[in-house]
Amino acid sequence: MLVDEDKVRHNIRKMAAKAQDCGVWLRPHFKTHQSAEIAEWFRQEGIDRATVSSVEMARYFAEAGWKDLTIAFPYNPLEYHQIDELARKITLNVTIVSAEALDHLCKEVNAPVGYFIKVDVGTHRTGINPSDEQLIKRLAQVGGASQHTLKGLLAHAGHAYQVLTVDKAVTIFQSSVQLLHQVKKVLGLPELLISYGDTPTCSLMEHFSGVDELRPGNFAFYDTMQHSFGVCDLDQISVCMVCPVVAVHPERGETVIYGGAVHFSKDFLEMPYGRNYGTVVRFRDQGWDTTPIGHLSRLSQEHGVVILQDSVQHDLKIGDLIGILPVHSCLTADLCGFYMSLKGKQINKFNKTGL
Amino acid sequence: MLVDEDKVRHNIRKMAAKAQDCGVWLRPHFKTHQSAEIAEWFRQEGIDRATVSSVEMARYFAEAGWKDLTIAFPYNPLEYHQIDELARKITLNVTIVSAEALDHLCKEVNAPVGYFIKVDVGTHRTGINPSDEQLIKRLAQVGGASQHTLKGLLAHAGHAYQVLTVDKAVTIFQSSVQLLHQVKKVLGLPELLISYGDTPTCSLMEHFSGVDELRPGNFAFYDTMQHSFGVCDLDQISVCMVCPVVAVHPERGETVIYGGAVHFSKDFLEMPYGRNYGTVVRFRDQGWDTTPIGHLSRLSQEHGVVILQDSVQHDLKIGDLIGILPVHSCLTADLCGFYMSLKGKQINKFNKTGL
Repeated sequence: MLVDEDKVRHNIRKMAAKAQDCGVWLRPHFKTHQSAEIAEWFRQEGIDRATVSSVEMARYFAEAGWKDLTIAFPYNPLEYHQIDELARKITLNVTIVSAEALDHLCKEVNAPVGYFIKVDVGTHRTGINPSDEQLIKRLAQVGGASQHTLKGLLAHAGHAYQVLTVDKAVTIFQSSVQLLHQVKKVLGLPELLISYGDTPTCSLMEHFSGVDELRPGNFAFYDTMQHSFGVCDLDQISVCMVCPVVAVHPERGETVIYGGAVHFSKDFLEMPYGRNYGTVVRFRDQGWDTTPIGHLSRLSQEHGVVILQDSVQHDLKIGDLIGILPVHSCLTADLCGFYMSLKGKQINKFNKTGL
Repeated sequence: MLVDEDKVRHNIRKMAAKAQDCGVWLRPHFKTHQSAEIAEWFRQEGIDRATVSSVEMARYFAEAGWKDLTIAFPYNPLEYHQIDELARKITLNVTIVSAEALDHLCKEVNAPVGYFIKVDVGTHRTGINPSDEQLIKRLAQVGGASQHTLKGLLAHAGHAYQVLTVDKAVTIFQSSVQLLHQVKKVLGLPELLISYGDTPTCSLMEHFSGVDELRPGNFAFYDTMQHSFGVCDLDQISVCMVCPVVAVHPERGETVIYGGAVHFSKDFLEMPYGRNYGTVVRFRDQGWDTTPIGHLSRLSQEHGVVILQDSVQHDLKIGDLIGILPVHSCLTADLCGFYMSLKGKQINKFNKTGL
């Protein structure tokens, strides 16, 4: 997986400037790149806090010098010990989605943590129902009487991923923020932070009234999916899988690459022409072209089947390298052991152990 | 990822006995488990040769003492050096899908390798068109005049994965084997081996007339997909992801687990009730029940959303562990850093580096 550092830095700079202009904090989600080296590029833009999606990822970034991390994943009682340990070293925020979780946190985690109440603003994955006033009040009171601090309300509008226009993004944003402020009003705690954000919303919108911090992650890399949603241009996609051609079948318009489900993961876009697992571009020594020449149409464990445009059907031979702009860069990045810079330098990253 | 050693050994023993009864070699595909320790369980059933899907996986198993390996993936010219090096140490077979690949192999790889001509028996992923006599003859002649040895013809009926009955498996098997024997006849080389096999065919059928070796892989673990195809019983599935419950939503029949796309991969079954990413079962200290209590219906990067049957809706609380029989065990196994035995012992595996 090749990373174009200039493009990543450009994406970060643009988002950081937007957040600053709007007077909100940027707490970028590092689950996309999972790399301490890439995290430094954020730091150089003035970012000093981040979001992660697991306790072990928090530990990895804490070791890399990050002092203020939010684990934007429901508090997992089975990891209380690791949370306790980490909270002794850095400012650690966890995400609470139930009374049971908060009770456990208060009972088992001694080191003070910050906690955010996750509010379900319509995605229906996790989070408190914003109309459940009794539960909301309980979550504030229990925490208030403990060693921990209720820092704010956190929401992820995952349903914004199905949104293709700025207008719809604005609508979802406004209704979500309204719900969050209702909850805040119920609690009567004006100091509570509102933490919000996903890449489509943060990329498409220009103002974030009513929000204190934004947590987009994918925007550092972007991908074919975000491009298909109209969220980025193809030349903003800053990562590219470079794959060798191992078989050519111009008679059926297909080229087979060494690059399969274990390299890309299996997310796809359902398009009128079939499934799209990635955008095919030409690979150059200095990077890659951003004009698509085909798409990745099928994946098995190690094989990828590419459908090329007619005009380039006969340009490729086995042993050639082609570029694939991943359909979902977070999952593809998760699968690679490390990145490669355009200059051929290895960029290390976190690799989960599963424990 | 928990591995039930008894079940794996039972699956191996059954397939090994079937191969022996039929007078064919079993050259199991190790891409499913990717573990030198699990490979020993095969060796204890008399298996001394295996199939792998990449050069680096071949190197891993060679280091673990495997002396006869077939890389059932198209020869990749960019890896000629690693192939050359490995072929000096073990009996290494590669897969040839074009004249260009064979020319490159003959020119660049000095150490003798065996090669199989991959024949496309209908899957249309890679392989020589069986009616292209000119190419087939050329592939035999070029190799014959080189340091390498044409060992046989290799086919993978990937389209057998869409087959749900024994009768259809038999039909695909018979037509494929007929095509392979036609190619063999064109070459006039009776000593050529016929290498065939995939888990549905090898599990459903009892006789393999016309074939010299079988290469199923998934059968060691099986999974929800194979079960849905009628290829295995649920109690033959020998791996189970154990995931903590992090949120319960009985009001909408959903339970959220710590277990997402980065743990399971994103293969799924399209079912009448929606997508199925895995079968939910109860986890027990000694293993897991095989009676399904729900299914995994959605995955994001680290979250999984489980739909439970009504009767168990209120049985689970946060912090509980549940079992998921993966929909595609090969991809889920690829994602885990290691396995855990039922006795809590770590079972190590290969982890690709991406280079």
